[in-house]
Amino acid sequence: MHTNDYYCVIMAGGAGRRFWPHSRQASPKQFIDFFGCGQTLLQQTFDRFRQIVPLDHIFVTTHKDYRDKVLEQLPELAASRLIVEEERRNTAPSIAYAAHVIEKEDPQATMVVAPCDHLILNQGEFKEAILRGLSFAAAHDVLLTLGIRPSRPETGYGYIQIDDEQEGGFYKVRTFIEKPAREFAEIFIQSQEFFWNSGIFLWNVKTIQQAFRNYMTEICPRVDRDVPDFTSCPNISIDYSIMEKADNVYVQLCDFGWADLGTWDSLYEVMPKDRQQNVVVNGQTLLYDCQNTIVSLPKGQLAVLQGLDGYLVASRDNVLLVCKKNDQNAIRKYVNDVEMKFDGKYS
Amino acid sequence: MHTNDYYCVIMAGGAGRRFWPHSRQASPKQFIDFFGCGQTLLQQTFDRFRQIVPLDHIFVTTHKDYRDKVLEQLPELAASRLIVEEERRNTAPSIAYAAHVIEKEDPQATMVVAPCDHLILNQGEFKEAILRGLSFAAAHDVLLTLGIRPSRPETGYGYIQIDDEQEGGFYKVRTFIEKPAREFAEIFIQSQEFFWNSGIFLWNVKTIQQAFRNYMTEICPRVDRDVPDFTSCPNISIDYSIMEKADNVYVQLCDFGWADLGTWDSLYEVMPKDRQQNVVVNGQTLLYDCQNTIVSLPKGQLAVLQGLDGYLVASRDNVLLVCKKNDQNAIRKYVNDVEMKFDGKYS
Repeated sequence: MHTNDYYCVIMAGGAGRRFWPHSRQASPKQFIDFFGCGQTLLQQTFDRFRQIVPLDHIFVTTHKDYRDKVLEQLPELAASRLIVEEERRNTAPSIAYAAHVIEKEDPQATMVVAPCDHLILNQGEFKEAILRGLSFAAAHDVLLTLGIRPSRPETGYGYIQIDDEQEGGFYKVRTFIEKPAREFAEIFIQSQEFFWNSGIFLWNVKTIQQAFRNYMTEICPRVDRDVPDFTSCPNISIDYSIMEKADNVYVQLCDFGWADLGTWDSLYEVMPKDRQQNVVVNGQTLLYDCQNTIVSLPKGQLAVLQGLDGYLVASRDNVLLVCKKNDQNAIRKYVNDVEMKFDGKYS
Repeated sequence: MHTNDYYCVIMAGGAGRRFWPHSRQASPKQFIDFFGCGQTLLQQTFDRFRQIVPLDHIFVTTHKDYRDKVLEQLPELAASRLIVEEERRNTAPSIAYAAHVIEKEDPQATMVVAPCDHLILNQGEFKEAILRGLSFAAAHDVLLTLGIRPSRPETGYGYIQIDDEQEGGFYKVRTFIEKPAREFAEIFIQSQEFFWNSGIFLWNVKTIQQAFRNYMTEICPRVDRDVPDFTSCPNISIDYSIMEKADNVYVQLCDFGWADLGTWDSLYEVMPKDRQQNVVVNGQTLLYDCQNTIVSLPKGQLAVLQGLDGYLVASRDNVLLVCKKNDQNAIRKYVNDVEMKFDGKYS
């Protein structure tokens, strides 16, 4: 293993609001101690990678609004390892710039890029998978993504269809499918050819740099410099700009207990449940005649709930949300309405 | 009118918990600004009677635990007008003692006794009704109660069946009926012979003193003295000990927009509703696809609620309660459970 050439980039710039009211504009989900475990999602992610790559090989990208929050939550992160975007430009520009910075430091580097809003249940398996992936990416001219064996026909995730096996556990990618309709998701599961796209990518810096030159020529002069010009970069994701276009894209099949904490519903799916299939993420509760319900409260708060089936009950600061948990898009609408009506007071 | 012989006794000792989490052991509903109007129920009641009898003719009875709360909320109340019970003994003993104190001060006195957990919508009509009742009670040897024309077959209230009319609006009482079953309540409404028992009583001090001597002989030596001995008094209500036994009981028919704030459900009934029959007592709300639901939040809190039909959503301090609002007895059970499980922390 060439651990000294391994780098990590943690993406911590999201403003995700589907976890409102827990996530707020001023404090998106990555900065929240979601599980009441004493660590925010960002801190959990950082700790996870500290066990895999050297401390000063971990970069964190974020938006300028969250610069202080990141430094405060990660006191061990040197300011030089923090990549700050002046403008939100989705994942491609900041990954391109991170690759440029890392290549300047170590032209042999192989890097893993990871969001920090994931739940990883099995840290040991995760570490093993990342090291195996870094090793494969170091040795091959490939863009590698981690694919998760699906446990249910989830419609909130992207899927990867696999092609031929390259070597043990590594497959060529046939196609990416964004959030499918329920009936397709069910077929995907049955076919055993489809895996959840974790959004965790691994590649040699040379390979990703070449991919940017091939598929996003216009971005290179804006990020291949000491001070990147994010403002003039296109607002585009790495998935759309590179992964869905390149022909050297591979997937590594993994099974380390993974969930994208993209929505309350996805959180519900992965959390331990009581006999009535209720999940209490956080807080004290007394539940009467409740089923399939997820509850998350601030520390020290008590909720007495009765007669709820399939609801989300979430409270944070001065906001309470009670709604059916299966409507993924509804919360976004609520937050917009709250913004319109209360002029940012609660959003 | 002999306003100078008119006295008022406000009963403010209840520990009612059916409004939990708004009411707590340390702060029952009478001490709460229920409607976010800037006044607690006790303050509203006090102000209501200040417009009817002289300020220093208003007595307040309470339990020793709430002594300071009453004096704090009613800075105009002289300490000498506060009757403090060392032990909870229901309404009969404290009313008997209040009658003794008032009779010593003014043997001609006629008094009105009122709880302070009522909602009165029409203050003008209320004042008129009380003055009419006091005048009737001053002139007759009667125990008078105010009866409210029922607007719905409420099963949470007591009813009074009327007998012959004595004079305009004043009827002899045939019988009292405690909280009836639904089918009886419906018959009561149709018959037009039944009225809600408001629990507001009016009588001459001589008349009520005589009634105590007739029906509760044992109480007299314990309260007809400077320092009453509540501890050795029986724990009994004025309704049960006197009103249901005496033969000079009358009812005055009233219609001033009255509700007993005994339960969330009764509060729901009297409050203005939106087109989906939702009631927002307090707080900012965005309601989606909600019907027949009542919401009460602390000041400055926002609730976004979706898909609730017939629920109560109440939040106060560190407690949230979401439950079906039509089960009157359930909340008492929840509070007991909370007490057992969390050792008084939230009750």
